[in-house]
Amino acid sequence: MKIAQIQPAGRLATEVPPGLEGVIVAETDIGDVRGQEGFYHYRQYNAIDLAEKRTLEDVWHLLFQGELPSLAERERFTEEVKPLRMIPDGIKPLLPQIAKLGEPFIPLNGLRSAISLFGSALAFEPSLDVSAETLRDNALRVCAVVPTFLTTLYRLNQGLEPVEPHPDLPYAANYLYMMLGEVPSPEHARAIEHYLISTIDHGFNASTFTARVITSTGADLAAAVTGAIGALSGPLHGGAPSRALDMLDAVGAADNAEPWIRASIGRGERLMGFGHRVYKTDDPRSTMLRRVAEEISGDNVGLAKIIEETAVRVLAELKPGRKLYTNVEFYAGIVMESCGVARQMFTPTFASSRVIGWTSHIREQAADNRLIRPSAAYVGAPPPQPVSEAT
Amino acid sequence: MKIAQIQPAGRLATEVPPGLEGVIVAETDIGDVRGQEGFYHYRQYNAIDLAEKRTLEDVWHLLFQGELPSLAERERFTEEVKPLRMIPDGIKPLLPQIAKLGEPFIPLNGLRSAISLFGSALAFEPSLDVSAETLRDNALRVCAVVPTFLTTLYRLNQGLEPVEPHPDLPYAANYLYMMLGEVPSPEHARAIEHYLISTIDHGFNASTFTARVITSTGADLAAAVTGAIGALSGPLHGGAPSRALDMLDAVGAADNAEPWIRASIGRGERLMGFGHRVYKTDDPRSTMLRRVAEEISGDNVGLAKIIEETAVRVLAELKPGRKLYTNVEFYAGIVMESCGVARQMFTPTFASSRVIGWTSHIREQAADNRLIRPSAAYVGAPPPQPVSEAT
Repeated sequence: MKIAQIQPAGRLATEVPPGLEGVIVAETDIGDVRGQEGFYHYRQYNAIDLAEKRTLEDVWHLLFQGELPSLAERERFTEEVKPLRMIPDGIKPLLPQIAKLGEPFIPLNGLRSAISLFGSALAFEPSLDVSAETLRDNALRVCAVVPTFLTTLYRLNQGLEPVEPHPDLPYAANYLYMMLGEVPSPEHARAIEHYLISTIDHGFNASTFTARVITSTGADLAAAVTGAIGALSGPLHGGAPSRALDMLDAVGAADNAEPWIRASIGRGERLMGFGHRVYKTDDPRSTMLRRVAEEISGDNVGLAKIIEETAVRVLAELKPGRKLYTNVEFYAGIVMESCGVARQMFTPTFASSRVIGWTSHIREQAADNRLIRPSAAYVGAPPPQPVSEAT
Repeated sequence: MKIAQIQPAGRLATEVPPGLEGVIVAETDIGDVRGQEGFYHYRQYNAIDLAEKRTLEDVWHLLFQGELPSLAERERFTEEVKPLRMIPDGIKPLLPQIAKLGEPFIPLNGLRSAISLFGSALAFEPSLDVSAETLRDNALRVCAVVPTFLTTLYRLNQGLEPVEPHPDLPYAANYLYMMLGEVPSPEHARAIEHYLISTIDHGFNASTFTARVITSTGADLAAAVTGAIGALSGPLHGGAPSRALDMLDAVGAADNAEPWIRASIGRGERLMGFGHRVYKTDDPRSTMLRRVAEEISGDNVGLAKIIEETAVRVLAELKPGRKLYTNVEFYAGIVMESCGVARQMFTPTFASSRVIGWTSHIREQAADNRLIRPSAAYVGAPPPQPVSEAT
């Protein structure tokens, strides 16, 4: 794709940037990213402040209800969500087979299938045809069940018994509990909660946009979330956290950082965990997760900080003007691995919180909908050429 | 959504139309729609000419290989596709349960799950990481297996034994054969083939755009097709063919057409089968399918023509300037019902050919990719407000 244009009938073509970069396609009051300032927010609150001071349920409440809950509202919301964590009986028998599909099994692709089946099992109706209350109910159910699907598929694939949701643990601690089979330490639960809160929403990223495009056709909420999961599975979007950690393994030791990075860039490779379409300064998620990683972890953080410092310096030298810094994936991997999350569950863990952002955008899109249907410029051989019979 | 804008850093905002209408976001040589002329084409050929003169396999070859096949090439391509129609053993045991999910069962949602599982079972890799040949192979497999999935799910839901692909029948006849369990008449096979060819591609419709957005993240082909199926399930995109026929039933008789249509519009309802984002004149698919319907059918066509004539006249009177004509869905329902296709299989039948268009666009997007990531304008309360602890 070389160029993008606006070309309504009878008007002059106006160029828009390729990839729709910077093109505003919707109004939202869910949140925003200010890439130049290294700042992002959910509604009127700095997202990092929310991660530092609030629970996952609080921020979920903020996105779904429009405001932060009081203690009593938090309690009510948590109780509303808890029973929705259970996997419906109609789908349970399918999961052992789904968890064995593919070599290797990709948990995020398993989730894609599971949410598609979930929407069918619960007979979600088109967003065009349902009330705002029904769509909220659909959204709440999908968000609540995603961690259960992910951890169940993961354990089944590993040959382990699935662990039912814990009746007393909140979202983040329950996620680690269902994955690992034991109640996590408060430090690990809180570290994962920081990560989960910080990744709930982030402007019009490709998966959120996908969810809104699908919703704009009036499709049901599961169709939109299934599509968003697919978009998140792309390496250019959600696929980097484990690869960034793989890079740490490959570098191995501090004095190998600079030669390894120079060789990698020299081969034209993309450094995983660096660079972002929107941020042209430090990614605030990266800064927070570096701090979280320092609090809970030992060996890896030191090496990661050396790699970060080296890579930023070498990238500034070899790719001047590109403004490449660590992104959310770089320290996320260290935080997750320190909490016992296996590498194949890194991007799925991202999905388990991002689904709250997706469904918030789906609800907003459905509330004031217009079909999103752009155009393409045909650049092939001119039609119509005559069609002959085959000979 | 009230407005859309272009707002790259430091430049003045430029308005773009809501819903990205008329905004060109890619270059393509697959085909185009000229809405003002009532004309659309696949590569350099009028799509309606292709439907009249060629087989489904020929047009599939045109989209995948870039040119219409000779008789020998058609033979080779058909033989390449045939073995790919079979459902993989790893997925077969799941289908009876999938076909019972939801009340009512929605075959298109079943297909959404099936293709997601198919991508996992065959371990499709990210489009970013595979060669053009591998992506073509993935695309061919998905297109070949979609009709088998759809008809198998349909028959299982109906309590019927699935019918294996017929070793000698081409695509369109085999589709009816697998659905109905008997070899169709040449007239019915050819009528469905007209419909299937005419719906393979149609510009940057919402499902095709969805497939390209998902592919732009580097995700695998199944992720993109799964998302596209979801978009097609929206009533504003693929959901109308059976509803248009339901309207014919509701009208019942010719002299009821005008009062029924006036009452429906008076209640603010949308007339199913009328109006299109791009066509502001006769939809060429509608014109062709009216002719096909006249050739194979009896009673319904007469009533449909009266309703069409009445609705176009009444819409021009009550909604002047909107230029509302019948779209592809209006006569498609009559053609499909005359061939024995049940109403719940109308939109799925649309999907069974459109997947050839989707996968062509996926291949084109992957060949010259850039992440599609637009922006949104934040219109909520100004951040950052201080975050307090819950009380």
